[in-house]
Amino acid sequence: MNDIKQSLDAVERLIITHLKDNDISETIKRASIYSIEAGGKRFRPTMVLSTLKALGYPLEHGHSTAAAIEMIHTYSLIHDDLPAMDDDDLRRGQPTNHKVFGEATAILAGDNLLTESARVVISDDNLSDDKKIKVLGVLLKNAGQKGMISGQMLDIEGETSPITLDELAQIHNYKTGALIRACIEMACIIGEASDDVTNTLNRYATEVGVLFQIRDDILDVVSNVEELGKNIGSDVSNNKTTYVSEYGLEGAYEQFDTLYETAMDHLKSIETLISVEPLMAILEKLKINL
Amino acid sequence: MNDIKQSLDAVERLIITHLKDNDISETIKRASIYSIEAGGKRFRPTMVLSTLKALGYPLEHGHSTAAAIEMIHTYSLIHDDLPAMDDDDLRRGQPTNHKVFGEATAILAGDNLLTESARVVISDDNLSDDKKIKVLGVLLKNAGQKGMISGQMLDIEGETSPITLDELAQIHNYKTGALIRACIEMACIIGEASDDVTNTLNRYATEVGVLFQIRDDILDVVSNVEELGKNIGSDVSNNKTTYVSEYGLEGAYEQFDTLYETAMDHLKSIETLISVEPLMAILEKLKINL
Repeated sequence: MNDIKQSLDAVERLIITHLKDNDISETIKRASIYSIEAGGKRFRPTMVLSTLKALGYPLEHGHSTAAAIEMIHTYSLIHDDLPAMDDDDLRRGQPTNHKVFGEATAILAGDNLLTESARVVISDDNLSDDKKIKVLGVLLKNAGQKGMISGQMLDIEGETSPITLDELAQIHNYKTGALIRACIEMACIIGEASDDVTNTLNRYATEVGVLFQIRDDILDVVSNVEELGKNIGSDVSNNKTTYVSEYGLEGAYEQFDTLYETAMDHLKSIETLISVEPLMAILEKLKINL
Repeated sequence: MNDIKQSLDAVERLIITHLKDNDISETIKRASIYSIEAGGKRFRPTMVLSTLKALGYPLEHGHSTAAAIEMIHTYSLIHDDLPAMDDDDLRRGQPTNHKVFGEATAILAGDNLLTESARVVISDDNLSDDKKIKVLGVLLKNAGQKGMISGQMLDIEGETSPITLDELAQIHNYKTGALIRACIEMACIIGEASDDVTNTLNRYATEVGVLFQIRDDILDVVSNVEELGKNIGSDVSNNKTTYVSEYGLEGAYEQFDTLYETAMDHLKSIETLISVEPLMAILEKLKINL
């Protein structure tokens, strides 16, 4: 079984089963599961699984890693939505965690998803201890002060003072790029990719991260609340620096297209070494609704 | 070098060095280090190191684990002090993290300490991958939904409705007991303790956890703000169920003494197998200022 869709279902079940294994606090269980079940595109798990598929490695070996990174992504959204942070009411088309469970529970549910994410990897019988440690090292490095958390902080500080384009790129590089790069890097560890393939895929991952952000900025302008599942126009109303505010809508599309081609070229450069189709499909997904 | 005091200094340096390795966000670095440097008794690191000393194992091998559990403890205090949680202004004699850095930063600094705690263990060259995975498994299990986080949730829910004595014991068992038990269990893994010794030490750890809580409840009544480093009488003014509110001050002291003797007896039962003195010293520490 090497089908990404089936694997994504298995990853979903793995997360829910893990979170259900809590006979101490029904509230933590419900609040943690709520934000997982609120949906989302499962972009990061798809990245992990697509890379393993490209490497010809059994997808099962990536399930716990895919689960862990989605749990970390979800925890970051819960905390990001808190009144003290972005103060958002709507996420993935549903009321945000603190709107349903209250702030204290939302903080704890986020903490829980972060803590439990690593435990899902630790509990995986498919992976050797050596791979687990390497995967966790990459996962937590990119989720912590060397990645997402510091990016999040820069983003918050950027809201109160004007930032340059370089600073904008840096914020995205850490805030969203780090976790996306982690997906590929972890899959390369699990799937035992060669150094050459890993290096090229890491470059591709960086490009996907930026494409992801440009797409997000464009959708905030051209999408509607039903499609996006969160409040639209929030970047404009928050006076945020985005690719659209800096380059204009047309310019943002151009940046997207150029980078898209570069990422495609990187994949083509290794198409004799691995099956690049699943990774090309990721790029195509990023074009949907644009 | 097998001296606990010297090792505690090394653990301190390890935490600070790790947190300083952040060239992305100066704010996250400062806020994370602030709460570590605010002090505290380093009770959990002392537990880890004392157990290794009792087992006759090099203390260096416990430094990263001791650092990690103190980082987790500190993150839990930062989040616990937030306005949405206990809303405390003072901790360890200093303004709480959100009072100095604001709520958003405090949430992120807490997330950071949690994330980075595991990275300190992962980066430890002294430990085999096998020990790292086992140590992280115990650490995160007791910090997450099977331990501290669920206990924290029960504690918050207990504030709004009257709770029974059994419920009180359960809350402590998870909220503070879990991490304390983890210290011993992790040290037994690192120090390769026999099953017999591990079982007895786990019982001792449970008792230390309860002693710790009874002590905390007594100090909230008999101490003063300078000694305690946080606002006193807060349990009474918050109408919280505590050992003192349930058993009276005299009764709480009696409970403490009985349990103290039981814990001592457990240590004495293995004194031919390990050097129990460092662990007896922990019990004696819990009597100070009572």
